[in-house]
Amino acid sequence: MKLAILGLGKMGYNLTLNLLSHQHEVVAYDVDSSRAEELGREGAIPAASVEDAVAKLEAPRVIWLMVPAGEIVDQLVDQLSALLSPGDIVIDGGNSHYKQSVERYERLKAKGIHFLDVGTSGGMEGARHGACMMIGGDREAFAHIEPMIRDINVDKGYLYTGEAGSGHFLKMIHNGIEYGMMQAIGEGFEVLQKSQYDYDFAEVARVWANGSVIRGWLMDLTERAFRKDAKLDSIRGVMHSSGEGKWTLETALDLQAATPVIAMSLLMRYRSLDEDTFHGKVVAALRNEFGGHAVEKK
Amino acid sequence: MKLAILGLGKMGYNLTLNLLSHQHEVVAYDVDSSRAEELGREGAIPAASVEDAVAKLEAPRVIWLMVPAGEIVDQLVDQLSALLSPGDIVIDGGNSHYKQSVERYERLKAKGIHFLDVGTSGGMEGARHGACMMIGGDREAFAHIEPMIRDINVDKGYLYTGEAGSGHFLKMIHNGIEYGMMQAIGEGFEVLQKSQYDYDFAEVARVWANGSVIRGWLMDLTERAFRKDAKLDSIRGVMHSSGEGKWTLETALDLQAATPVIAMSLLMRYRSLDEDTFHGKVVAALRNEFGGHAVEKK
Amino acid sequence: MKLAILGLGKMGYNLTLNLLSHQHEVVAYDVDSSRAEELGREGAIPAASVEDAVAKLEAPRVIWLMVPAGEIVDQLVDQLSALLSPGDIVIDGGNSHYKQSVERYERLKAKGIHFLDVGTSGGMEGARHGACMMIGGDREAFAHIEPMIRDINVDKGYLYTGEAGSGHFLKMIHNGIEYGMMQAIGEGFEVLQKSQYDYDFAEVARVWANGSVIRGWLMDLTERAFRKDAKLDSIRGVMHSSGEGKWTLETALDLQAATPVIAMSLLMRYRSLDEDTFHGKVVAALRNEFGGHAVEKK
Amino acid sequence: MKLAILGLGKMGYNLTLNLLSHQHEVVAYDVDSSRAEELGREGAIPAASVEDAVAKLEAPRVIWLMVPAGEIVDQLVDQLSALLSPGDIVIDGGNSHYKQSVERYERLKAKGIHFLDVGTSGGMEGARHGACMMIGGDREAFAHIEPMIRDINVDKGYLYTGEAGSGHFLKMIHNGIEYGMMQAIGEGFEVLQKSQYDYDFAEVARVWANGSVIRGWLMDLTERAFRKDAKLDSIRGVMHSSGEGKWTLETALDLQAATPVIAMSLLMRYRSLDEDTFHGKVVAALRNEFGGHAVEKK
Repeated sequence: MKLAILGLGKMGYNLTLNLLSHQHEVVAYDVDSSRAEELGREGAIPAASVEDAVAKLEAPRVIWLMVPAGEIVDQLVDQLSALLSPGDIVIDGGNSHYKQSVERYERLKAKGIHFLDVGTSGGMEGARHGACMMIGGDREAFAHIEPMIRDINVDKGYLYTGEAGSGHFLKMIHNGIEYGMMQAIGEGFEVLQKSQYDYDFAEVARVWANGSVIRGWLMDLTERAFRKDAKLDSIRGVMHSSGEGKWTLETALDLQAATPVIAMSLLMRYRSLDEDTFHGKVVAALRNEFGGHAVEKK
Repeated sequence: MKLAILGLGKMGYNLTLNLLSHQHEVVAYDVDSSRAEELGREGAIPAASVEDAVAKLEAPRVIWLMVPAGEIVDQLVDQLSALLSPGDIVIDGGNSHYKQSVERYERLKAKGIHFLDVGTSGGMEGARHGACMMIGGDREAFAHIEPMIRDINVDKGYLYTGEAGSGHFLKMIHNGIEYGMMQAIGEGFEVLQKSQYDYDFAEVARVWANGSVIRGWLMDLTERAFRKDAKLDSIRGVMHSSGEGKWTLETALDLQAATPVIAMSLLMRYRSLDEDTFHGKVVAALRNEFGGHAVEKK
Repeated sequence: MKLAILGLGKMGYNLTLNLLSHQHEVVAYDVDSSRAEELGREGAIPAASVEDAVAKLEAPRVIWLMVPAGEIVDQLVDQLSALLSPGDIVIDGGNSHYKQSVERYERLKAKGIHFLDVGTSGGMEGARHGACMMIGGDREAFAHIEPMIRDINVDKGYLYTGEAGSGHFLKMIHNGIEYGMMQAIGEGFEVLQKSQYDYDFAEVARVWANGSVIRGWLMDLTERAFRKDAKLDSIRGVMHSSGEGKWTLETALDLQAATPVIAMSLLMRYRSLDEDTFHGKVVAALRNEFGGHAVEKK
Repeated sequence: MKLAILGLGKMGYNLTLNLLSHQHEVVAYDVDSSRAEELGREGAIPAASVEDAVAKLEAPRVIWLMVPAGEIVDQLVDQLSALLSPGDIVIDGGNSHYKQSVERYERLKAKGIHFLDVGTSGGMEGARHGACMMIGGDREAFAHIEPMIRDINVDKGYLYTGEAGSGHFLKMIHNGIEYGMMQAIGEGFEVLQKSQYDYDFAEVARVWANGSVIRGWLMDLTERAFRKDAKLDSIRGVMHSSGEGKWTLETALDLQAATPVIAMSLLMRYRSLDEDTFHGKVVAALRNEFGGHAVEKK
């Protein structure tokens, strides 16, 4: 199949290599033209602009967006809306909010253009060698791209999830679970690190990654991280986040679903951004007021 | 009533003044003899030792311990066990663990000596002007001291709670609630502090302390703290703890009672003791492994 | 001062009585005309419609909305926007979302009409005998109504909080704290209820309400509730919520403020709405899969 | 290697089959003699009693306990202490508390007998086909059994963790992480179940188990559970627990380690045991007291 990938960052770059290795023709575009040129040397067809990328495709055109969630997606959808024809297919493979995907679906549908919201999990390695893809949107559009999707995901690691938004919704929830799992792993190692025992953390992760109930890719990655830095002495425990955990909690609140573990994993990320906290100051000051307990001065 | 106070720290000192102002005779002892001498000038009878304090009382002797929870209580109970006679009454007014109070009760009961576990809330001001007291142990021993207890607690702010340990158990739970309330207040002010609005926190605490649903002594103290330091700039948000919150949670776990707010208020105290966290490092390292997300180097 | 109250539910009705008892002239209107008639017998001036209420006032007119948060506020603001004149003052005393209050402020400001967002705490009793009011909006509009505000709030229980939205924002945070405090109290009693001791809960609440660190109105109300039903046997532990706790958490998430206690108190409310949970089924099924642990069949 | 397995429940039975399939000689004993007889038909040597099992071994004897944590372990350790000789090795492969394992290690060491605390993860399938084993105790004892351990754990899924107790400590933490992960998965599916989308949960688990960041054995098991019962309609969401999660949290508290996700996953298990809650009643009653909000009557 011939298609265009717009956005050649960590995910889009690897996805393009994956597609090429399965004999698909990929028109590659990025605002940083060096990325497309690099992929050109790997067999992709570099495009100089969005217009150029569209022009290099034949109907029904398939355009895969692999850009960060946010305004840039809307800009591209607007631009493509003017360039594409009925029957063409736009895929958003990024981490967009599912409500925005529903809006974009409606916007393109008004022009007869299909929009598929594709949640992609598996990191850079997944993009390159086989990820997990959750795909919402019109079934006929999905059917058109399924052979290509099958090629780039090993072991049938993809799912057509139904109506518009359901792919990104599912990916959002996946990330919420991921937050909880990662925090759980982190907490376990924190207790080990504070304990009286002197464990080799890489070996702990290795043994847990083999045969245990908690084995899985995250544990493989935990071992890999500890192999590089046995006690993680070189890094700070600042946990950034890029939105999906927050969206998951907000969605849970809207649905009145009790999700304490997802909530706490998100809140501990926020806590990690602050060196000191105002709530801590208030509590310390109160303890001093009623009990004369000493406070720590700055 | 004539009684001895052993331990003249912040709480014992103020309690002695409270008793003296209600015309009770107080034999006062502390390892730091200057404390008893000071109270001697206020009308107390200074004692040079535990033996001396006991010798200065008449049967049935009433001895009130106001010392930190822990070994020192056991040492005093052992010492008093040898010095006292059947019918005498030992009061533990500190924050002892209720299980230890039950053991001490049994130990003294074997000698015919009463033991009352008295949980005391209200801080230093309460000790001085009227606290809240929760009293477990033999009813007849309570009946003997009730007139004195009534004097030092305004508005009948005391309760005979029944069998041995029930006083300290109730105080423990009180402190668990206190942890939750303080954390709730702290969190509220943290959101205010991070918001786009520029509130005068002392005024906020003042208005909340007048007529609102959340009015109470903690809010009065919050106002007082902000009056001294408008943004609490001079202190660090390190939240120490002295045991009762932890005991409350441990007890809740034993009883399989779901207490998420008490649990989280305790865990945030522990979190505040660490400048950086190991769980944060693990999560940051994992994000880097699967998604190539940048980590913050030390 | 002469003013109109629109909305004579639990809060508006009591607020009207409060104003009347301080010799203010109150034009009273509710969709249920019997409420205005009732208040007419107490000295209020019943109005037959919003138009009638406005007509009964003189410039600068003061209109106080005491209606549930939501669409009805917008309908009234639109209606009043057409009826009022520059310099008039609309007060929203309900629990509106602060962002909506900012929008309404802007909408009325375009017509020269003042809008004050007044967060009101203290329950029905507060509305009647003196509440806590947090007031955002134009300072000159506040200055105009301050004498009236002073009358109906004892001990200066009001605060001008600054720009539009800041009153409702502060009330929102107040409610977030309230959620945390209530859950903390509830958890404490749950541990008592599951403990080996047989406490008289009304007496426990009474003693905690007198002299303790956690004394306050919520503890007074706890005592009152237990006096009516010693073990709360007649009611179910279903905890409904009306929005402010959710808004507080959503705001905290937007500000990246770690508020675990507020979060958990909200999530436990949602949890209480479900008799059974899907997350529980998943965990139970997983335990069965890996360990053969028995599941409970329906 | 020749060794005895005491305790032929789900784990011990499968472990025996595993050992037999690797040509080890297994003396098998259980209080239910039919279990040993059954395994006798598979090639094991049935023993009629603990004494008989010991008598059937040659020095240095290796005895593997596979019984539930608790008193039964102490009874067996006492019994074996009298039957065994210096140099013999007792293995506790159950989920004992690490502090008890240290005590048992000391008790047997006084007689010259080795004690290895072996945390075993992987469920029944792991016991049968290759689990994950974490082994604390004397290194020489470990060295003696390592060849056998290697046989029954694929991919080197075992780790010698050092001094006594460190094996069971590590297994305890493993289970704490497991609690967090399972709750995270459960919460994710709860949000899906409450959402507007109609997902096929088995297919969701399948796709997440292939290529995603959260792939792992728990996700495989999630798929398996949903294949049997698409919406888990037949079971109740009651989440029992057998101790390790509680011990993990208690240990974290002792070490002042902030573990909110592990804490909440445990507390939600406790919450699931109650059809109604007392904290919910208190909160509902309080809302009624201050705001007149309706309560749900029983």
